[in-house]
Amino acid sequence: MGGKRLGARTLVLQNRPAITGHACAVGKMEGEGPLRDSFDAVEQDARCGMKSWEQAESALVKKAFRLAAEKAGVRENNPQLIFAGDLLNQCIGTGYGLRNTGVPHLGLYGACSTMAESLLLAAVLVDGGYADTAAAVTSSHFCTAERQFRMPLDYGGQRPPTAQWTVTGSGAAIVRNTSGRHPRVTHVTPGVIVDAGIKDANNMGAAMAPAAYDTIRCHLKDRNLSPRDFDLIVTGDLGSVGGGILVDWFRKDGTDISAVYADCGMLIFDPKRQDVHAGGSGCGCSASVLCGYLLNGMRQGRWKRILFAATGALMSTTASQQGESIPSVSHAVSIEMGEG
Amino acid sequence: MGGKRLGARTLVLQNRPAITGHACAVGKMEGEGPLRDSFDAVEQDARCGMKSWEQAESALVKKAFRLAAEKAGVRENNPQLIFAGDLLNQCIGTGYGLRNTGVPHLGLYGACSTMAESLLLAAVLVDGGYADTAAAVTSSHFCTAERQFRMPLDYGGQRPPTAQWTVTGSGAAIVRNTSGRHPRVTHVTPGVIVDAGIKDANNMGAAMAPAAYDTIRCHLKDRNLSPRDFDLIVTGDLGSVGGGILVDWFRKDGTDISAVYADCGMLIFDPKRQDVHAGGSGCGCSASVLCGYLLNGMRQGRWKRILFAATGALMSTTASQQGESIPSVSHAVSIEMGEG
Repeated sequence: MGGKRLGARTLVLQNRPAITGHACAVGKMEGEGPLRDSFDAVEQDARCGMKSWEQAESALVKKAFRLAAEKAGVRENNPQLIFAGDLLNQCIGTGYGLRNTGVPHLGLYGACSTMAESLLLAAVLVDGGYADTAAAVTSSHFCTAERQFRMPLDYGGQRPPTAQWTVTGSGAAIVRNTSGRHPRVTHVTPGVIVDAGIKDANNMGAAMAPAAYDTIRCHLKDRNLSPRDFDLIVTGDLGSVGGGILVDWFRKDGTDISAVYADCGMLIFDPKRQDVHAGGSGCGCSASVLCGYLLNGMRQGRWKRILFAATGALMSTTASQQGESIPSVSHAVSIEMGEG
Repeated sequence: MGGKRLGARTLVLQNRPAITGHACAVGKMEGEGPLRDSFDAVEQDARCGMKSWEQAESALVKKAFRLAAEKAGVRENNPQLIFAGDLLNQCIGTGYGLRNTGVPHLGLYGACSTMAESLLLAAVLVDGGYADTAAAVTSSHFCTAERQFRMPLDYGGQRPPTAQWTVTGSGAAIVRNTSGRHPRVTHVTPGVIVDAGIKDANNMGAAMAPAAYDTIRCHLKDRNLSPRDFDLIVTGDLGSVGGGILVDWFRKDGTDISAVYADCGMLIFDPKRQDVHAGGSGCGCSASVLCGYLLNGMRQGRWKRILFAATGALMSTTASQQGESIPSVSHAVSIEMGEG
C-alpha cells in the first residue's frame, strides 16, 4: 500500500509501523523526578564518566540507542536508517554518539521537536517499505545547552520564572514493519513554521505554543477527531507557561483539551521539589518521556491512543542577538496500541 | 508501488519522481566563476541588502526557493513538505528563510551533504505517495560560515592550501510525482557515518573523502554498475585534496572513476583566477551547482545519468576544541533524464 494523505497535512500510515523497542537514558536530576521509574538508565554524573559534557551527551545517545535496540531484539547495526538530531551546534550529540553504528544516518534539526520529527520520518519510511527497521534518536544535556544557548554555568545567572530547565537525557525508538502487539504509528502531521513574534529566549513556551496549537488543530481537523478521541494529547515541552497558552487558545475555539492534555516538560520534574521554573525542555525532554513513561504506559494499558506533538524553537543565539523573533515548529505523531 | 530496497543500502524509487523545477541564487564571487551562466540570480552585495550576513543567507534561500517554485510552475505554498538545512548553528539560514512559506518544514542537519539528504528524502516521500510535491532547499554563506567555524573575517587569518572556500549560495529543487521529460530520481543511497580520524578542520576534503568513497562504492555495488554506467559521478565538495583521495582509493580497488568524476567544489571556482585554495565548500556549493549547472546540463542533453554524492563533515568547533576527529557522511542520489 502506498502513502495516503488526509486533509491539509496529515499522512496516513496504512501499514501501522510498530515501535518495537524504546529506551531512555537520563541524568541525575531527571532520575530524582516523578518519572524516575520509567527511565532505563540514570547517570549520577553529569559527565557520564567522559571528559566533557558534550561527550557525556553522546554517551547518553549511545546508551539509549543500544538499550532500545536490545529491547526491540535487533542488533545495533540492524536498522536500515537512523533519523537523529539534538540541540547542539552541528548536532554533535547524536552525530558523535551514533558515529560507530554503521547504520545510514539522516541528521535532523528540529530543535525540541526532533523526537517527533525523527519518529515521523522513521515511521513513514518503514510504512512505505523503504526500511524494515528504522530508528529515531534524540538528546539534550543541561550543561551543554546552557553554555551554548545561555550563560556559562559558573556564572550563576538568574533565570526568570518563564525559563525552562533543559533535560539531560536521550530517547531512542526502533520502528519496524512487524506483527504483534505494540504501540503503532498510525498518522503523522508535519508542522509548518509559526512565528508569533516572541523574542524572549527565556520564554520558549510562549514562542512554541502557537506552533503546537496549529499542528494539533490541523491533526484533529484532518482526521475529523475531537480531543477526547485521544486518551492523551502530549506536547513536547511547552512547560507551564506555553501549556497554559495552548489550553487557552483551544478554549477560545470552543475546544476543551484540558481533560486529556499533558506536557512532557511538566511531567518530568516536580515543580514543588525541583527548582525548574516553568518545567523541563530540550529535545531530550520529550524524547525521554516518550521513550519511557508514555510508551511504557501504552504497553501497560494506561493509554490506548495518544497524540505526541513535540515543539521546537528554531532560533539561535546569533539570530536572537540580531533582534530576530523565534520561529517555531511542531510535528504530531499519533500512536495507537494494537496489533499490526 | 511500495518502496523497494536493493543490496546493502540502496532504495529504488519505482515511480521515478521528477525534479520539475530547480534554481540557485549565489554571491558575487560565484557569479564571477566558470559556472556564472548557470545561476538564476547573482547578488553583488554580501549582505543582499539585509542588515546581517545571516539575514543575507536567508534571503538567498528565499530567492532560490521562490525561483525553483516558479520554474516548476507551482505556488510557493504548494509543496506538501520542505526538507531543508544549512551549516549555521540551529540551521537559521533555512529556518528563517523559509519561515513564511506555510509549508510543513522538516529541518535537516547533514553539513555539506544536506543537498543530497534533502533531495533524497523529498524524492522518497514523493515516490511513496506521501507528498505530490516536495522541496529540497540548502544554503551556505562565506561570511556566516567563516565567522562561525573559523575566524572573524576582519582578522584576516591565513588559510592553509588544503582549506576550502565556503560558497555563498542557495539551491532549491522541487520534486513532483508527474509525467513529462525531467531529471528524475531513480535510486538513492543514504550514507553511514565514516570517521577516518582526521582532526584538521582545514582539511575537510581528506575528512570527507572516505565517506564519499564508502557511499559511491556501495551505490555501484548495490546496483551492479560500474562508474562508466554514469555520465557523471559528482561529489559535493571534496575539493582538489579530497577529490584526489577519492580517485586514488577507487584506483586501489582497480576502479578508474577519473573519466566520469567531477566535484562541485572544483567546478564552481577557477583556481587560476580565484584564490580559493582547494576549492569551494559549504552546503550551498553542491546545492547551487546541482540546481543550476548539473540539472540544466541534464535538460540540455549534456548528461543522461548522473550520481550526485554530497558529503558532509559532522564536527563542530566545540568538538574540534575538545580534540575530536571529524566524522563524515555522504548521501548519493542517482538522477536520470527521462519520461515518468
